[in-house]
Amino acid sequence: MAIHDALAADKDSILAANAKDLELAQRSALNGELSPSILKRLDLSRPGKFDDMLQGLKDVRELEDPVGRVDLRTELDDGLILQRQTCPIGVLLIIFEARPEVIANIASLAIKSANAAILKGGKESTESFKAISTIISKALAGTEVPNDSIQLVTTRDAVDPLLELSQYIDLVIPRGSNELVRHCQRKAHMPVLGHADGLCTIYIHSDADKDMCVNVVVDSKTDYPAACNAVETLLVHEDSLSTILPAVAEALLAKDVELRCDGPSKAALSHHLSPDLATKLQSAQDADYDTEHLDLILSIKTLSANSAVNTAIEHINTHGSHHTDCVLTASKETADRFSNGIDSACKFWNCSTRFCDGMRFGFGTEVGISTNKVHARGPVGLEGLMIHEYRLSGQGQGAAMYGGKGGRQYSHKKLPLA
Amino acid sequence: MAIHDALAADKDSILAANAKDLELAQRSALNGELSPSILKRLDLSRPGKFDDMLQGLKDVRELEDPVGRVDLRTELDDGLILQRQTCPIGVLLIIFEARPEVIANIASLAIKSANAAILKGGKESTESFKAISTIISKALAGTEVPNDSIQLVTTRDAVDPLLELSQYIDLVIPRGSNELVRHCQRKAHMPVLGHADGLCTIYIHSDADKDMCVNVVVDSKTDYPAACNAVETLLVHEDSLSTILPAVAEALLAKDVELRCDGPSKAALSHHLSPDLATKLQSAQDADYDTEHLDLILSIKTLSANSAVNTAIEHINTHGSHHTDCVLTASKETADRFSNGIDSACKFWNCSTRFCDGMRFGFGTEVGISTNKVHARGPVGLEGLMIHEYRLSGQGQGAAMYGGKGGRQYSHKKLPLA
Repeated sequence: MAIHDALAADKDSILAANAKDLELAQRSALNGELSPSILKRLDLSRPGKFDDMLQGLKDVRELEDPVGRVDLRTELDDGLILQRQTCPIGVLLIIFEARPEVIANIASLAIKSANAAILKGGKESTESFKAISTIISKALAGTEVPNDSIQLVTTRDAVDPLLELSQYIDLVIPRGSNELVRHCQRKAHMPVLGHADGLCTIYIHSDADKDMCVNVVVDSKTDYPAACNAVETLLVHEDSLSTILPAVAEALLAKDVELRCDGPSKAALSHHLSPDLATKLQSAQDADYDTEHLDLILSIKTLSANSAVNTAIEHINTHGSHHTDCVLTASKETADRFSNGIDSACKFWNCSTRFCDGMRFGFGTEVGISTNKVHARGPVGLEGLMIHEYRLSGQGQGAAMYGGKGGRQYSHKKLPLA
Repeated sequence: MAIHDALAADKDSILAANAKDLELAQRSALNGELSPSILKRLDLSRPGKFDDMLQGLKDVRELEDPVGRVDLRTELDDGLILQRQTCPIGVLLIIFEARPEVIANIASLAIKSANAAILKGGKESTESFKAISTIISKALAGTEVPNDSIQLVTTRDAVDPLLELSQYIDLVIPRGSNELVRHCQRKAHMPVLGHADGLCTIYIHSDADKDMCVNVVVDSKTDYPAACNAVETLLVHEDSLSTILPAVAEALLAKDVELRCDGPSKAALSHHLSPDLATKLQSAQDADYDTEHLDLILSIKTLSANSAVNTAIEHINTHGSHHTDCVLTASKETADRFSNGIDSACKFWNCSTRFCDGMRFGFGTEVGISTNKVHARGPVGLEGLMIHEYRLSGQGQGAAMYGGKGGRQYSHKKLPLA
């Protein structure tokens, strides 16, 4: 709340600093050096944006304390009690790009989770970042949180040297473009939490409900096409080419989605769609199935009937990004076969890929979405900033007392967690 | 059980192969190229060793199935159900040195956890490794486990190239010397589970019980001095120098432990011990406090009374290896302060550091002890070979239906796990 109040009190000076960033950015945008979407993300004066930042701090305050949660208690022997409990990871390096309001959110998450954090902002938001970070530092000085526990790095070119300091930094969390994530994954000497790509796929099985397919595919593609959880590839069982795909394609074309079709799907759609819609169909190139379009573009591929589920699984495991993939089918058996076969963090059945999100999953806040195979996978909440420690308390016991002939035996009795 | 039965049936050929390894190793040992302890670890014909290997397979079979355990179920909305469940990590690379029997244990753990595994044995156990691995492969061919899911690499120099294949291998588990672990940590492009050092410390507070100190320190040092969880450094509150330390030192010297003391502890012990014992005391060098002796050697350091607990915490966080550290005190408050301050996987109070072990913790089997800050920390059981996935099943819902004016609200209702 100290941070919240300080930011609220200094709104004017923050917006003044932000205006300087915006001015520079507008010039870069005019020169074509900066995309208009980055410009939009940078602007803290947009209606509601500053208040959302303040509300975010209150939301983090309301989250359950993640530190010291006991998830295992075992009596190893009389008076020898083992306990496993959550604790912070240590020092986080959080790197983000244009959105200056993320600094406040991330600082509050680090404090809530009792981690120390080094925050590195993007160069487009330098002035906003400096203003917000100075206010946060001043606010922390009046609290029990050590001021050094949140360090803000504004120096350019500091990222690469930081990524080598594995003796001091335990986890890197990049919040920004795929390029930023990939750069961190390549350079970091410590674990990186996140995902570089979001190439999500939906497979339409032969028994899927047509209306459901229309709803789910249209939402997955058009709700927010630039998001990592938007669908990029549609796999279609060949029996669905004439029964389901035309309605799906019509709805997508009505929303200005470009359809890049393989031969069979283009032929079927050309036959079933009105001529003016059919002329809009594009032909897919091989590269389309490996591309995260992040735009109103969908690649479509047909799967032959005799091995469609297996081919869908193989396609997703080979061309996907292990993020979120979905099957549309009336059969639980088919859904289970699909979900057991794909190697994805999130496996959806009959619902939009867009639901892959920490807020929507009910985690309260989102640190990121991870496609890592260890630590945390899928949408990551505050839990992903925690690890566990073991505490064992005894009455002078030694290990030599146990086992062998006449030695004591471990009881390994499960104890209640409270 | 197929592996168990095949190994039992082919015991003779395995021991014959092992005898070849032993012969070569004995020659290297005579030349001083190989330590006698490696020779001992290599010998599968030692009484009970083969049966232990077979029993280990039965033990793994008895473990609870770790796959598909549901640990979160949430209703996001009517008919939109989220479930988090455990699943295998993917492909493990397990590298081990002299102990040939570990192959069978690790293969069974990989199968139980539904991970694929690439196993790489040490060069000293090449023949044993080949014999056991051929039998395992043949045994798997008669089961539903894909033969390729357990791959055994005998080629020399294969380790470094494998450590670069992060697109295929998800986790490396080195089982062997500190050098092996350090090598993997340095070279691997994927996460490494384990610990390079085990520099464990015990701190004796002023109010500790003398007999308890004697028991715990002697056990921690002498039960198995070559283990990673043996104590290497003893920190002593200056008030305990004359009240507790002499009894501890006497018991250690009686067990042939070399004591490397700082000035104050050496002075106090010289005063309190009999002259013949006092002559055995050594002086510590600075480097001793950074050394994992792995032998009957203990470094002793005195902490001044006015800041002993804080100094102990600082010493452990600076010189320790974040593995297992212990406080001896009658006060729960002091124990908590100590445990909250140290950054160790295992924090012990009034018991031997030797209890840090997967079997002793009741995990049934041990994959290793991790000092990592993410994924798994402390003794790691089968759980450490698992990650989770999210499954969401719906009835055609899209994300655009939610939020905003008139939109649906998420219910985020916690559901029972069963």
